[in-house]
Amino acid sequence: MEDNHHHIENSEEYIGLNVNSGVAQPPSVNPYMHKVVRRKKYSAAEYVEGILKGDRSILSQAVTLVESLLPEHHAIAQEVIEKCLPYTGNSIRVGITGVPGAGKSTFIEALGVHLCGEGHKLAVLAIDPSSERSKGSILGDKTRMEALSVTKNAFIRPSPSAGSLGGVARKTRESIVLCEAAGFDTIFVETVGVGQSETAMHSMVDFFLLIQLAGTGDELQGIKRGIMEMADGITINKCDGNNVEKAQLAKAQFQNALHLFPLPESGWTPQVNTCSAFENINIDGVWKMVTDYIAFTKANGYFDYKRRQQSKYWMYETIDEYLKTSFYNNEEVQKRMAAYETLVNNNEMTSFAAAHKLIDFYNSL
Amino acid sequence: MEDNHHHIENSEEYIGLNVNSGVAQPPSVNPYMHKVVRRKKYSAAEYVEGILKGDRSILSQAVTLVESLLPEHHAIAQEVIEKCLPYTGNSIRVGITGVPGAGKSTFIEALGVHLCGEGHKLAVLAIDPSSERSKGSILGDKTRMEALSVTKNAFIRPSPSAGSLGGVARKTRESIVLCEAAGFDTIFVETVGVGQSETAMHSMVDFFLLIQLAGTGDELQGIKRGIMEMADGITINKCDGNNVEKAQLAKAQFQNALHLFPLPESGWTPQVNTCSAFENINIDGVWKMVTDYIAFTKANGYFDYKRRQQSKYWMYETIDEYLKTSFYNNEEVQKRMAAYETLVNNNEMTSFAAAHKLIDFYNSL
Repeated sequence: MEDNHHHIENSEEYIGLNVNSGVAQPPSVNPYMHKVVRRKKYSAAEYVEGILKGDRSILSQAVTLVESLLPEHHAIAQEVIEKCLPYTGNSIRVGITGVPGAGKSTFIEALGVHLCGEGHKLAVLAIDPSSERSKGSILGDKTRMEALSVTKNAFIRPSPSAGSLGGVARKTRESIVLCEAAGFDTIFVETVGVGQSETAMHSMVDFFLLIQLAGTGDELQGIKRGIMEMADGITINKCDGNNVEKAQLAKAQFQNALHLFPLPESGWTPQVNTCSAFENINIDGVWKMVTDYIAFTKANGYFDYKRRQQSKYWMYETIDEYLKTSFYNNEEVQKRMAAYETLVNNNEMTSFAAAHKLIDFYNSL
Repeated sequence: MEDNHHHIENSEEYIGLNVNSGVAQPPSVNPYMHKVVRRKKYSAAEYVEGILKGDRSILSQAVTLVESLLPEHHAIAQEVIEKCLPYTGNSIRVGITGVPGAGKSTFIEALGVHLCGEGHKLAVLAIDPSSERSKGSILGDKTRMEALSVTKNAFIRPSPSAGSLGGVARKTRESIVLCEAAGFDTIFVETVGVGQSETAMHSMVDFFLLIQLAGTGDELQGIKRGIMEMADGITINKCDGNNVEKAQLAKAQFQNALHLFPLPESGWTPQVNTCSAFENINIDGVWKMVTDYIAFTKANGYFDYKRRQQSKYWMYETIDEYLKTSFYNNEEVQKRMAAYETLVNNNEMTSFAAAHKLIDFYNSL
């Protein structure tokens, strides 16, 4: 962050990790480690023009603008997004998650290359608040998607590396707008199946794909409870070699389990299949699952309904996040928070009394 | 509500539905339909003294005070709760949910009578915001718990019938404090498995019991997704007559399904069994599931950890609810909300721009 602010003060603009440039990238997470180059500043109109022309370098800079923490960047970013809005919405947005080790990167590479081969334009974005805690950003390591990253029709962008989950997710959602305006018809949003990022992802994609591994409970410890119920489709990856039998069994187990769940709002019964991203087996089968879902939900009207709900969700989310932030980030409130937490912990004050005392104090400021 | 306010203006105090009085109750949901009788007003100290003595009538009036919407009632209610706090916490809190038709009332009656027979003192509370929408309150109809309601050691209280889910849940949680101070060692919190009430319930009970029926998907349409993953235990009810085989099958299916889920934070593997509340079969088996869980989590420290987390959760919940309420209930904000929703719906403005415009307006007030 320090480093970043330093650059900003020098009014240099950080150019995100554009793995399409073909320039070797450090495997690092932290975008602030990348070299900072001076660039011409564009007007909102110039950004929009470039994006609509599909200029990848301008798109990349616009995404950087969206990710910027500077207020002056915020204003122009919003203007660019507003102007791009009319040209968006005509894509398929797929959320992809799974525990580390499930083979997300290999899968995204395999499916991505397949789709680009069919003439699709694919943008791969990520939600990974953990990256700011230098835990290792997903998509951060270009070498993990060697083939896809040099594919002309693919645009890969690591997770914005700043702020709360809400903030990171908001930036990802705004980047979707820019990518769609730039003509990308397929959007992947990747996240790691270990946190609340999935809920955020679920609120911005059309189809939620869970990449699973063969095996039961023990192997799944990593994944957060509740995520399986968000999935519109599950694929058991690494179904190859002497793992095939285990994978087929897992497929049957998941199918039975999903039958015990109520049908999702979409009316679509979540599908389960197997694939091998590494051996490139049944990758098209997974994609068929997605396109079947899209056709199904467009037919019953759920597709548009969900997108409208998502827009409203984000409006309310943003409002709620703002309201909380201004309360919890208030220094005077923070000074008193711990004391009340202790009282509540020791059963010396009810949660409600403590809350009301803090609120009364906040309102008195 | 109208009716209610009328009474309040007459400064009469509504006496909740105390099914222990043995007085015939209307099967109705709506407490405001019950006759309103004048009562002596107690001081906080008198309430506390009565509660600690286990005076059921005073307990009932104290709960009514907690449920009251009147500010002047709020202050004294909080004082009573604070004074009761030191005498609370030594109970087992069990959340019970299931879709309408799963047989919750019959089950609660059977288990309740069993526990009271063993000398336990049982308080049955409910979270059911739908009651205010005159959808039919759970526990509202005394005739559904004939035997239990006349049991000396049982205290049954229908869902408070006012306000948001957060408000209703808060009152239920505060009522738990009063009931524990009154010497009730076992608390049931009932809710219907159709809404977010389960999340609220989950945040105030030690053990989450899901009452399920034999059968797959179709029969479970009623239950909300995600609820099954909250369960510490599932019992397949109505395992009697020619339903036994189906129930046994369902038990096996649920057990297999649960194995696919990661272990909950408690380290406890959710149990599944069968019972028949109607035929009174294996009701004690269900209770053993609960007591085993309590022993297990008290041994590994999760029991206390969870209760402390719940207290904090409610402190933050209350703060967040207040912050939202003051924004969304602001008339000026409300006037503008719909217009921005439309803009967002028609893709004419991003969710984020709309949110910020509303917030700027709110802050300018």
